[in-house]
Amino acid sequence: MTSKTKDLTALFHETLKDIYFAEKQILRALPKMAKAAQTDALRQAFEHHRDETQGQIERLEQVFELLGKSPRGKACDAIVGIIDEGKEIMEDFSDTEALDPGLLAAAQAVEHYEISRYGTLKTWATQLGLPDAAKLLDATLQEEMKTDKLLTQLALQSVNRKAA
Amino acid sequence: MTSKTKDLTALFHETLKDIYFAEKQILRALPKMAKAAQTDALRQAFEHHRDETQGQIERLEQVFELLGKSPRGKACDAIVGIIDEGKEIMEDFSDTEALDPGLLAAAQAVEHYEISRYGTLKTWATQLGLPDAAKLLDATLQEEMKTDKLLTQLALQSVNRKAA
Repeated sequence: MTSKTKDLTALFHETLKDIYFAEKQILRALPKMAKAAQTDALRQAFEHHRDETQGQIERLEQVFELLGKSPRGKACDAIVGIIDEGKEIMEDFSDTEALDPGLLAAAQAVEHYEISRYGTLKTWATQLGLPDAAKLLDATLQEEMKTDKLLTQLALQSVNRKAA
Repeated sequence: MTSKTKDLTALFHETLKDIYFAEKQILRALPKMAKAAQTDALRQAFEHHRDETQGQIERLEQVFELLGKSPRGKACDAIVGIIDEGKEIMEDFSDTEALDPGLLAAAQAVEHYEISRYGTLKTWATQLGLPDAAKLLDATLQEEMKTDKLLTQLALQSVNRKAA
């Protein structure tokens, strides 16, 4: 392993630990968000994404294995901050008409964090000559982008419904 | 103002304060990232985005004005966490080949946070019957998406250059 490869492998591994921690936090937050949601469509979206997140965690465990490492998380201040902001909205806007829009906003901030991380990790896996890892990371990236689009649709539907 | 509109206006205002604080943090972080960057292309991208961020802050001030509010930020744990992770990478990978990839990853996490926030704010501005605000927010959203694409290109170029 050249020193170049060694440095990027270390950064790849650190970022993998970051998103592994993040996914586990998201897995715990989603049932609370589903419970708080006021519309069936939003609740179902959160429930579906909770199941998807479980599969994404398993894919990350496969990537750790491809690296020859044990799956381990590392506290990620970014996702903790994003989820805390979502909790604050749930408290401040509970029982108001702004609760679902607020939950959608929080969920989209989470999705975009994941989109950036999986995009980066996929690029690095390719650079490091780990095509199987890149494939696993891309599968999750596609799911996250699909979820973000669905949430955008729900947000726009909510706008149109209220305008009607 | 109906209670529905009142709630969403309050949430819009809170989220505006959140991104206003975030942009000011980003404005302070970008010169440090530019200074740390190892390639000219990345340094220039950060310097250009620093100037762009200044204009985005001014647009936010116009949106506050359209709401009849004074521009004011509110501590945003999410952006603080994202920027702190970037700082950690700058320290841990300084003088290594992984520094620029790490800076790119940090910058893309910032961009995606902003993309999610401006997308949400634009939708809400439309819903609240504030087309001028929606237009300002959309102008920034387009800039953030363009910056994210540029950063992706730089990340892929770096992959190809090293593979060559």
